[in-house]
Amino acid sequence: MNPTPLLVVKAGGTEGVNFSAICEDAAALLRAGQRMVLVHGGSAEANALGEALDVPPRFITSPSGYTSRYTNRETLEIFLMAVNGKVNSLLVEQFQKLGVNAFGLSGLDGRVLLATRKEAIQSIEHGKRKIIRDDYTGKIEKVNVALLQTLLHLDYLPVLAPVAVSEKGEALNVDADRAAAMIAAALQAETLILLTAAPGLMERFPDESTVLPRLPRARLPEALEMAQGRMKKKILGAEEALNGGVRRVIIADGRLPQPITQALAGRGTIIA
Amino acid sequence: MNPTPLLVVKAGGTEGVNFSAICEDAAALLRAGQRMVLVHGGSAEANALGEALDVPPRFITSPSGYTSRYTNRETLEIFLMAVNGKVNSLLVEQFQKLGVNAFGLSGLDGRVLLATRKEAIQSIEHGKRKIIRDDYTGKIEKVNVALLQTLLHLDYLPVLAPVAVSEKGEALNVDADRAAAMIAAALQAETLILLTAAPGLMERFPDESTVLPRLPRARLPEALEMAQGRMKKKILGAEEALNGGVRRVIIADGRLPQPITQALAGRGTIIA
Repeated sequence: MNPTPLLVVKAGGTEGVNFSAICEDAAALLRAGQRMVLVHGGSAEANALGEALDVPPRFITSPSGYTSRYTNRETLEIFLMAVNGKVNSLLVEQFQKLGVNAFGLSGLDGRVLLATRKEAIQSIEHGKRKIIRDDYTGKIEKVNVALLQTLLHLDYLPVLAPVAVSEKGEALNVDADRAAAMIAAALQAETLILLTAAPGLMERFPDESTVLPRLPRARLPEALEMAQGRMKKKILGAEEALNGGVRRVIIADGRLPQPITQALAGRGTIIA
Repeated sequence: MNPTPLLVVKAGGTEGVNFSAICEDAAALLRAGQRMVLVHGGSAEANALGEALDVPPRFITSPSGYTSRYTNRETLEIFLMAVNGKVNSLLVEQFQKLGVNAFGLSGLDGRVLLATRKEAIQSIEHGKRKIIRDDYTGKIEKVNVALLQTLLHLDYLPVLAPVAVSEKGEALNVDADRAAAMIAAALQAETLILLTAAPGLMERFPDESTVLPRLPRARLPEALEMAQGRMKKKILGAEEALNGGVRRVIIADGRLPQPITQALAGRGTIIA
């Protein structure tokens, strides 16, 4: 059915990641016959829009040390504007300018990403445990594979924003790394590349000379301990993707020219 | 092939139009077997976001009296955030909450709406003629019918934002009434309903008691003269839809409960 292996690329939304280079590189690979799905973040744009609208972003740190964006109804709408409206639309526009027939969607569209809303989130604030109940974030449970396969079959490049839909139909902010992992697993992708503003997983963060070129799957729990900040979710995503049948995950530098090609050539941290 | 006639509904983006009522009514009609495509505007949201970001909207009046939004690169991004990011996403979310599997897209996605960019626009400012060259607005030339038919066939409700793509791949702001007309014609819809914050076409604007219940197609040129402001584009859209093979166009009140059902029952101005 699918002769060419599928590549899922996640373009991080943090400052420094070079979206133009990612689009150009993806366009060249698509022209050469690569099958691909792109997932993007949008944290820097969501932060900037929040600041401009006097609703600065707030973050939640879970008792186990994971950081996520606090998303009440007001910030959810800001997130939708920045991530669905700006990042997704401008990525699709860049691809269209490059002659790639991109197709932007969020998980709301056709329920492509179905998630469970986290009804009560534990947060540590100034050392105290707090329960947050008005948060619209979720954990993806199901990917509408048929819909994505239809788009791929029709030769569109699916470009997905990190927004999911709950069973009740609510829009939810989801972590883009883990969304990309779930999508890669659901589509049985061969490779998942997580492009970020770092050269890979560093043994001693932030010393970029300590990037691990390879990380055997067995060492993932250890890497989870070692990882700092948002890198933790990438490790978690890598684990979910591998558990779901993806052959390898590459955490690579999204600031470089030809970042996808460079990752495929072995630059970054290969987890398999 | 398509046993049930298709209905295209355009939900106006001006203040007063009741999106919740439109979604609920559409959901009930879809449950009853109606085939439908929804097109929406977003002018009020785009204005509000522009004001909040200190980029208040500007409008252009053409020598023939048509008003359109001035859209340079900065306001295009604001438009994308408000219209693709907020209005489209929240409409899709409302439908998902109502159990309708909506699918939001803009004309960029899969090049569903291909438009010609207006390279030079004549504008009348304080009585003087000016040429504007940095405007990103367009006129739709082609609708990707196959893509919309695929979505309908898969039982999704297509929800379209008034954004198109140029031949060069640029995002363009397009008039939502005329976009809806082009889509209705391309899909050979039976009926196009333009829901707005007015009860229909008024013989003596703004006297709402002078709504014309029927307007024969032959009287469209006369109506174009009579219409004020944004109503002009609705008349133009009605003409384009009818010329394209749509059987009837209804300009109806989007502020009422069950606005689509009421329009189908004859409330508003029926043009045929």
